[in-house]
Amino acid sequence: MTASRGPGRVILVGGGPGDPGLITVAGKQALEAADVVVADRLGPRALLAGLADGVEVIDVGKVSGNHPVPQEQINRILVDRARRGDVVVRLKGGDPYVLGRGGEEVLACREAGIAVEVIPGITSAFAVPAAAGIPVTHRGSSGAVHVVTGHGGLTGAQVESLRTGTVTIVVLMGVGALPGIARAALAAEVDPATPVAVIEQGTLPEQVVTRTTLGEVADDAACAGFGTPAVIVLGRVAALDLGGRGTADAAATVESRTADV
Amino acid sequence: MTASRGPGRVILVGGGPGDPGLITVAGKQALEAADVVVADRLGPRALLAGLADGVEVIDVGKVSGNHPVPQEQINRILVDRARRGDVVVRLKGGDPYVLGRGGEEVLACREAGIAVEVIPGITSAFAVPAAAGIPVTHRGSSGAVHVVTGHGGLTGAQVESLRTGTVTIVVLMGVGALPGIARAALAAEVDPATPVAVIEQGTLPEQVVTRTTLGEVADDAACAGFGTPAVIVLGRVAALDLGGRGTADAAATVESRTADV
Repeated sequence: MTASRGPGRVILVGGGPGDPGLITVAGKQALEAADVVVADRLGPRALLAGLADGVEVIDVGKVSGNHPVPQEQINRILVDRARRGDVVVRLKGGDPYVLGRGGEEVLACREAGIAVEVIPGITSAFAVPAAAGIPVTHRGSSGAVHVVTGHGGLTGAQVESLRTGTVTIVVLMGVGALPGIARAALAAEVDPATPVAVIEQGTLPEQVVTRTTLGEVADDAACAGFGTPAVIVLGRVAALDLGGRGTADAAATVESRTADV
Repeated sequence: MTASRGPGRVILVGGGPGDPGLITVAGKQALEAADVVVADRLGPRALLAGLADGVEVIDVGKVSGNHPVPQEQINRILVDRARRGDVVVRLKGGDPYVLGRGGEEVLACREAGIAVEVIPGITSAFAVPAAAGIPVTHRGSSGAVHVVTGHGGLTGAQVESLRTGTVTIVVLMGVGALPGIARAALAAEVDPATPVAVIEQGTLPEQVVTRTTLGEVADDAACAGFGTPAVIVLGRVAALDLGGRGTADAAATVESRTADV
């Protein structure tokens, strides 16, 4: 029966940072056309509840403490289901090509001769700070933004950018690495008063924003309470609060706390 | 009559890179609620054609060669219209907070006591490379991405990042500055073979992708043909082509050409 449906295909969809309103119109349309959705732990889980009856959801979410589904197996699922004739939506958090391993999934499909396309998503690196009232660039404060991961820390050039003070650094997947990153930056003479913001569960109702400084987060104990997922902002803009979620909508309040340091 | 409608408000909406499917669901809903839309030259102009009858469009687009509407005047329009009771959507290209001066507009509204919120958009810095088949990060090629503008060139730290070769630099508003940026990078011993991609009209049917090298774009004549808007990608990933617009949709073809150098 499936063979008569013609060839399947794979659509990588950037689901955005979590708020279900922050998927693109094209991404939503792809979900509406899907036979099967391959979903992560991160991303707009709420959208899965809105799928039509009969759409299969394969959860390859990487739950902390459990074994994640290896990338090779995810690739194989995408290819196998497309070969069966399915329209396969690979729903990823944020943007597939911004530290999301989307390129590997696209290559796996192309090497298998499967039609594949990518629909960009709102990257958490920019939208989560916005939801905390932080513009990643701002006239007079920052004219460039660097997006990095916590793995491996900052390069010397990135630390130097931070030291000069006119650049924003956004760290994804960086909660565990934050004290080490801060200590390395301080050792390279970055100002300990450099503002830092840590945004947990960004864009979701559970969002928590912590505003602190580089000097304070160099202390492991100060960072022990931060949960994942979190987005970390380093640089002058991290001290700004232009109003985040709920500025014009009382139903969506921004909860703020001070780092318990 | 307008006074009876209650207080107005301002919603900054990131319209994305141009393809009208790349606005968010929340952004589209804001447009549907708008009394007036304040639009730029860049961004998804096609969405303006889909507005309901009676929605006023104020075009503050900065047409090259003409005088742009000054930022202060844009701010005043937003505040004045909200004070009249209008729901004012400020439709911006890309994301309001990624080199988009959104912070200034938000501050102007807040200082005037006007309710304002920001709905993020798909930034051209990431989605335009994707539409050219370029992932801004990719395992083994680049683990971080820097977004900068052409104004003022690259900082020493950014050049150093490029020299080490594991970072992607995306330059917005950089066509005029590109030869100078390339020459400065070469003088700092960045490899002249470093891949460069220039994507004009990215995500639109008129998209043109040019793949070249740092050594080649250091020549002013080689860059003379590039039009705006364009997004420039520097670094290893600029040589990749994972399939861009039209990979799975024959109606949206990717046109490629070689730099006429």
